[in-house]
Amino acid sequence: MQALKDKILADGQVIGETILKVDSFLNHQVDPKFTLEMGRELAARFQGENVTKVLTVEASGIAVAIAVGLHLDVPVVFAKKKRASTQDAGFYHSKVHSFTRQESVGIYVSSKYLNSNDVVLIVDDFLAHGEALRGMADIVKQAGARLAGVGIVIEKAFQKGGEALRLEGVRIESLACITKMGNGVVEFC
Amino acid sequence: MQALKDKILADGQVIGETILKVDSFLNHQVDPKFTLEMGRELAARFQGENVTKVLTVEASGIAVAIAVGLHLDVPVVFAKKKRASTQDAGFYHSKVHSFTRQESVGIYVSSKYLNSNDVVLIVDDFLAHGEALRGMADIVKQAGARLAGVGIVIEKAFQKGGEALRLEGVRIESLACITKMGNGVVEFC
Repeated sequence: MQALKDKILADGQVIGETILKVDSFLNHQVDPKFTLEMGRELAARFQGENVTKVLTVEASGIAVAIAVGLHLDVPVVFAKKKRASTQDAGFYHSKVHSFTRQESVGIYVSSKYLNSNDVVLIVDDFLAHGEALRGMADIVKQAGARLAGVGIVIEKAFQKGGEALRLEGVRIESLACITKMGNGVVEFC
Repeated sequence: MQALKDKILADGQVIGETILKVDSFLNHQVDPKFTLEMGRELAARFQGENVTKVLTVEASGIAVAIAVGLHLDVPVVFAKKKRASTQDAGFYHSKVHSFTRQESVGIYVSSKYLNSNDVVLIVDDFLAHGEALRGMADIVKQAGARLAGVGIVIEKAFQKGGEALRLEGVRIESLACITKMGNGVVEFC
């Protein structure tokens, strides 16, 4: 998606060779109209897959997931990083390791909102090592649902999460894919 | 907003006399089209206030905040509950006590995204004791910005957060306001 690449080049901030800060429009401050455009584009790529639910994980994935859900006209479920004190007994649970934060967190989805009749599109803001996606795919599997694929805003291809998941047969669509970063330069796939 | 009241009565789950679970359409599973309608309604109430930014806090406020930002055509900033490892030096910080979880968390907003030229509309899913709103209002004050008001999906008026903030001069608009709950019954203001 050219408009996203342009925005990354204009507003993104490269730190070292692995970190891309895009908090001016994606994960701290959000541009709602642009988010809607990104959602439209991701939804278009999975049109015809009969998706019944969009699944993301709080918090940065929510905005674009809502935009995708709006265009596919399906509910969006966001996995929680804490069990709510009011959460029912029935839930799916998986673990996600964050390389950025060097910690593991549990993610939770109530079993009321995913079941074996669902066709799930996972949506997230970033794909790097793929840990969050693996946690969500695990939850889709626990629910007995079908995984239609994964829609990502920015894939950092050099961190290999996408490559590994594609080898396992998961369809992944990224709006922008980066092969290399460093010295303030971003190279797209 | 009648459609919201209807949805609360149809899908909400009252636990004891203080907890209303609406995770089927608001804070775990989200109905994107309905979220857009709620955003349209909140935006309409603050039209003419020259709002420049919508401020919310991760995670459940994000969906409706995006919808409000879309209709007001302004950026949405979501306060983070952890300092990002990549966060710059300049940020505003406040503390929020959660009565539900019995814990305090810090919230953070980069100083790049709020300043003294901003007119801020705070948006959140629930207003109960008002702790999250106070934290966000504190951040608006630190930024030297003007607080246009607060837009809320569901206000639990019996928990008095709204009353106290209104006495301090804060304009609060709620799409649904509840005076009493218990025995499966919900009474609206």
